[in-house]
Amino acid sequence: MKKDTFASLNNIVIKDKFWDNYIRLVREVIIPYQKKAINDEVPDVAPSRAIRNYKIAAGELEGEFFGEVFQDTDVAKWLEAVAYSLATKSDPELEKEADEVIDLIGRAQEPDGYLNTYYSIGRLDQRWTNLTEAHELYTAGHLIEAAVAYYGATGKRKFLDIVCKFADHIDDTFGAEQGKLRGYAGHAEIELALVRLYKATNEKRYLKLAKFFVDERGQEPNYLDREYEETEDKSTFRNPRDWGLKYSQSHLPVREQKTAEGHSVRAMYLYSAMADLALETNDEELADICRTLWENVTQKRMYVTGGIGSQFYGEAFTVDYDLPNDTSYTETCASIGLIFWAQRMLSLEPNGKYTDVLERALFNGALAGMSQDGKRFFYVNPLEVWPEACGERYDKRHVKIERQGWFSCACCPPNLARLLASLGGYIYSQKDNEVFVHLYVGGTADLELSNQTVQFVQETNYPWDGKVKITVNPANPEDLTLNLRIPGWCQDPTLAVNGEKVDLGRITDKGYAKVRKTWTTGDLIELEFPMPVQRIYAHPEVRVNAGKIALMRGPIVYCLEEADNGSALPDVSLPRDSKLEAQFEAELMGGIVTIVGEGNRTATGDKSLYRTTPPSKKAINIKAIPYYAWNNRGNGEMLVWIREE
Amino acid sequence: MKKDTFASLNNIVIKDKFWDNYIRLVREVIIPYQKKAINDEVPDVAPSRAIRNYKIAAGELEGEFFGEVFQDTDVAKWLEAVAYSLATKSDPELEKEADEVIDLIGRAQEPDGYLNTYYSIGRLDQRWTNLTEAHELYTAGHLIEAAVAYYGATGKRKFLDIVCKFADHIDDTFGAEQGKLRGYAGHAEIELALVRLYKATNEKRYLKLAKFFVDERGQEPNYLDREYEETEDKSTFRNPRDWGLKYSQSHLPVREQKTAEGHSVRAMYLYSAMADLALETNDEELADICRTLWENVTQKRMYVTGGIGSQFYGEAFTVDYDLPNDTSYTETCASIGLIFWAQRMLSLEPNGKYTDVLERALFNGALAGMSQDGKRFFYVNPLEVWPEACGERYDKRHVKIERQGWFSCACCPPNLARLLASLGGYIYSQKDNEVFVHLYVGGTADLELSNQTVQFVQETNYPWDGKVKITVNPANPEDLTLNLRIPGWCQDPTLAVNGEKVDLGRITDKGYAKVRKTWTTGDLIELEFPMPVQRIYAHPEVRVNAGKIALMRGPIVYCLEEADNGSALPDVSLPRDSKLEAQFEAELMGGIVTIVGEGNRTATGDKSLYRTTPPSKKAINIKAIPYYAWNNRGNGEMLVWIREE
Repeated sequence: MKKDTFASLNNIVIKDKFWDNYIRLVREVIIPYQKKAINDEVPDVAPSRAIRNYKIAAGELEGEFFGEVFQDTDVAKWLEAVAYSLATKSDPELEKEADEVIDLIGRAQEPDGYLNTYYSIGRLDQRWTNLTEAHELYTAGHLIEAAVAYYGATGKRKFLDIVCKFADHIDDTFGAEQGKLRGYAGHAEIELALVRLYKATNEKRYLKLAKFFVDERGQEPNYLDREYEETEDKSTFRNPRDWGLKYSQSHLPVREQKTAEGHSVRAMYLYSAMADLALETNDEELADICRTLWENVTQKRMYVTGGIGSQFYGEAFTVDYDLPNDTSYTETCASIGLIFWAQRMLSLEPNGKYTDVLERALFNGALAGMSQDGKRFFYVNPLEVWPEACGERYDKRHVKIERQGWFSCACCPPNLARLLASLGGYIYSQKDNEVFVHLYVGGTADLELSNQTVQFVQETNYPWDGKVKITVNPANPEDLTLNLRIPGWCQDPTLAVNGEKVDLGRITDKGYAKVRKTWTTGDLIELEFPMPVQRIYAHPEVRVNAGKIALMRGPIVYCLEEADNGSALPDVSLPRDSKLEAQFEAELMGGIVTIVGEGNRTATGDKSLYRTTPPSKKAINIKAIPYYAWNNRGNGEMLVWIREE
Repeated sequence: MKKDTFASLNNIVIKDKFWDNYIRLVREVIIPYQKKAINDEVPDVAPSRAIRNYKIAAGELEGEFFGEVFQDTDVAKWLEAVAYSLATKSDPELEKEADEVIDLIGRAQEPDGYLNTYYSIGRLDQRWTNLTEAHELYTAGHLIEAAVAYYGATGKRKFLDIVCKFADHIDDTFGAEQGKLRGYAGHAEIELALVRLYKATNEKRYLKLAKFFVDERGQEPNYLDREYEETEDKSTFRNPRDWGLKYSQSHLPVREQKTAEGHSVRAMYLYSAMADLALETNDEELADICRTLWENVTQKRMYVTGGIGSQFYGEAFTVDYDLPNDTSYTETCASIGLIFWAQRMLSLEPNGKYTDVLERALFNGALAGMSQDGKRFFYVNPLEVWPEACGERYDKRHVKIERQGWFSCACCPPNLARLLASLGGYIYSQKDNEVFVHLYVGGTADLELSNQTVQFVQETNYPWDGKVKITVNPANPEDLTLNLRIPGWCQDPTLAVNGEKVDLGRITDKGYAKVRKTWTTGDLIELEFPMPVQRIYAHPEVRVNAGKIALMRGPIVYCLEEADNGSALPDVSLPRDSKLEAQFEAELMGGIVTIVGEGNRTATGDKSLYRTTPPSKKAINIKAIPYYAWNNRGNGEMLVWIREE
């Protein structure tokens, strides 16, 4: 085993106070809801008709295509979440339902392998003519990801065979060779999917095709531009220049891109594929581009929550240090995409800086997307919400003041479902006889090392408490290097192996502590990551955060909510020396740690809009809750960045 | 004389260190440029064709209408500015040119009095069918204002007769009577113009028609809604619901309006007419509505610069205390409109709160619209500009980082021209034998009182210095009450009459000091308004300004500009106790007072986006310049609200 590989989901059992509920919600609420949605069985919600489209394409129903051009992905994303769920918990009935849907997909496939109901239903002659917007390759990518996941979970090849036939068709259609189209997708996704398909099948053509798509993007003359020019009926075809070519990262060849530009979800999917390719093809140049883009995103264009995408227009990055808190887009899917990319960067080179961002995006930017009951979702996750203004301010029209039910463009909820259902796959990775522990999540992992399967048992109350116990259980003594992540937010970590304290400074490099020894069953690792309340300051060029702090404890970003602190939250300030304490509130939202302390507010009285008298302060008690947990107690204001005085 | 009346422009001569240059620019730069513009004689600028439209409408040229539906107002606004200029300085050649244009307008008038080239050229049958957007009544209003001004300046009736004939036609067309249209303008302006026409002609029908237009607005069933529904060809007709009926203040009958809503320029013109009507018809209910709206605008929805209109979308008001500094619309014309309204409120009841806002808008929000050379103009006047972000941020696309040449929609430059050309008309008003001095501007006024003309000579270096001398020169001793404005920003004013100090506390009410005596020639009033640098705090509910101050000195709002203070201006902070000093810089932009003092900036070093170490500060010298004077030394950042620590 040469490359760093994340552990297979099938070998992980999560048993964790924090995550169990989320994983249960995926199984018991989201996947069943999603199934009803694609079958048009949710009352009071506009039908998805995604299954119906497949039936029409299969010739089993009469009718017109309905929905978005990427409506098929509703089904693909459900199947992918189902796959991860089946990988971790058997459910024969669910598997049977999935098999039936897969059979239907197979029947909807064209004889030549093409598979897309939007085009199969009445406009097959137009396929591959609108790569800018029609999402065919994007849809193909999601089908491939689902099929690979389903194959990994169940060992069944049917879905895999369907997407291989489709991938072969795509490979016949696109490429640098004479007679093939030199196009690429307006929305990246196919690239990372093809790498997954290559890894599942070992078919090198898929890797080569992924590389073609990545390297062709942004080459001159620009394919998307030409495609638009050559289209006769432009009425239903957006000019790619409307958003700008940056929107789809097609403004430059990817190897010339130094800053993260355009639609942030598209960017994350593309960069993920670039990292994949760098690893699989030992492409050091591409790896360097990934590192440059990583620094740009995470050091200049990322919110403290791991949110990305500073503006609604184009759902896009803007310029360095431009991180407005109240008008940001910061889509749930973009944080999820950042997690995907971070995991791939970790595979490329273990470095805690990737894991730190992965964890930041997971606990904050991504998790905020879902309500505590798993039924409502935020697409857009600003760091400051003033509900009253959202109704009148056009530049805040994308900001919802409460989580919404399933959306007509159902991207974020299923993306969260597949992330949470596959969470186990993010905890461990291995390379030769080295094991990496990236995330601290309670449960058991059975990792196949060179000689034997070794069991790892984690016990922790993370993220509320920084104590982690890992018991290593090889059947026979095993010589093994264990790399334990030391979170970047932690300033005084400690480690003991079998009760004996280890000097972390000596063995820690790039965020991982390397413990090499011959392990015998029952060997106990005890980590402790003290979690004081931390005041986070932004780079001074982040204009909107000048003079402000965000509160963090461990990996969790906190916010003030109106429910605890009243309205007009930007008036709240925290003296630099005010004491802030964490407290576990067992009754609050299933048990969360809140932060309480003394702050100030302006004493009321003077009603004038402008005055020469400095505001007189009065002391107040403030309470901050985890950002991800906001808006679970009714609507109101929310604020992450608090003035410090 | 019963009502408070502002002094006629013809009797005022301004001779003032501050204003002379602006008035010269109007005469020597703007009016000649504007004349070239309407005659399509400006090289490298798209032609206005406004004069050409009149020639076509008069049957003297063949061709199509060109430009905006309100293109005629380019000519009207030029004539209005010319009129004010002629009122204060004779210019036979200019007057001859104006007379020729007026003759042309007369020849373009339809036999029934209708006058609008957009409709006269080929679509006369459609007149009065699109009040929402076609600006016919708005255009009529500007023609009427220009004609009244021209009559006032020259005594010539021709233009006045033309607009009277037009007003008669409008009066025949609109009204509550059977057979008339119960409509009103999508953009208010006709209402205040009709009151001016009434005052110039004493024709009561014009006052009645103005009252009809004001009171009909927003009545149910909504006229603008019905108009849209009844229009067959909706392709060129915007649904009034697109912006919302608030856009044109047609969401409610005006007497039910309690908050300032919609397009801010439209609102100002409407409220001005409402104040006019309240005065002219002794309508106390309407006066009360005006007072309520005044409090809402000036105490909850106005920028410290006297700018109004918090957002680009609809160029509109939003909600109370929503005053974003970097995305505001704050159109130059809206500040000018606020000045118009303030003057009318002053006529309704003398109160320094109106004058304070008038002065604030004049020296800041309005004056910022023009460059120091009179050749370039801002439409949009935000209080914080970060040029780098403006190119990428869609919600800042309306923010120009430098003043622009004449625009295709030429509203702000001519509006500024007519304001500055008529500045003399804002200084004095009189009511019976009381004289009010509202503004401190050097020069001479010859006011006709009951028995004689009394000359007032002001000498001052305002706004750079708070010393004002007024010499009162009646030919014969005159018993007269002089009301001297005590600016709201001034905390320690002093007054001496003929060298003898007067106790201002005893004689000052609602911002005016009342000095009653028998005046003889050479009587000397000496006012002194000390002008320390003031730190201005916003109401705590103005979220974006929490923890920040604006600097003012006298009526002038200051800003930091990159030219003096480097970039990343929001990083600058001012300790609460730091000393700030005013200094006159004779060489800078013709001589301005700047503010210098000690501030702080973050010491550089740490490049990380988020960190737990508080920023370490380093002391810097800051320099603030008047807000109106920014962007006269190249492009760069600008900031009004500065963090205080």
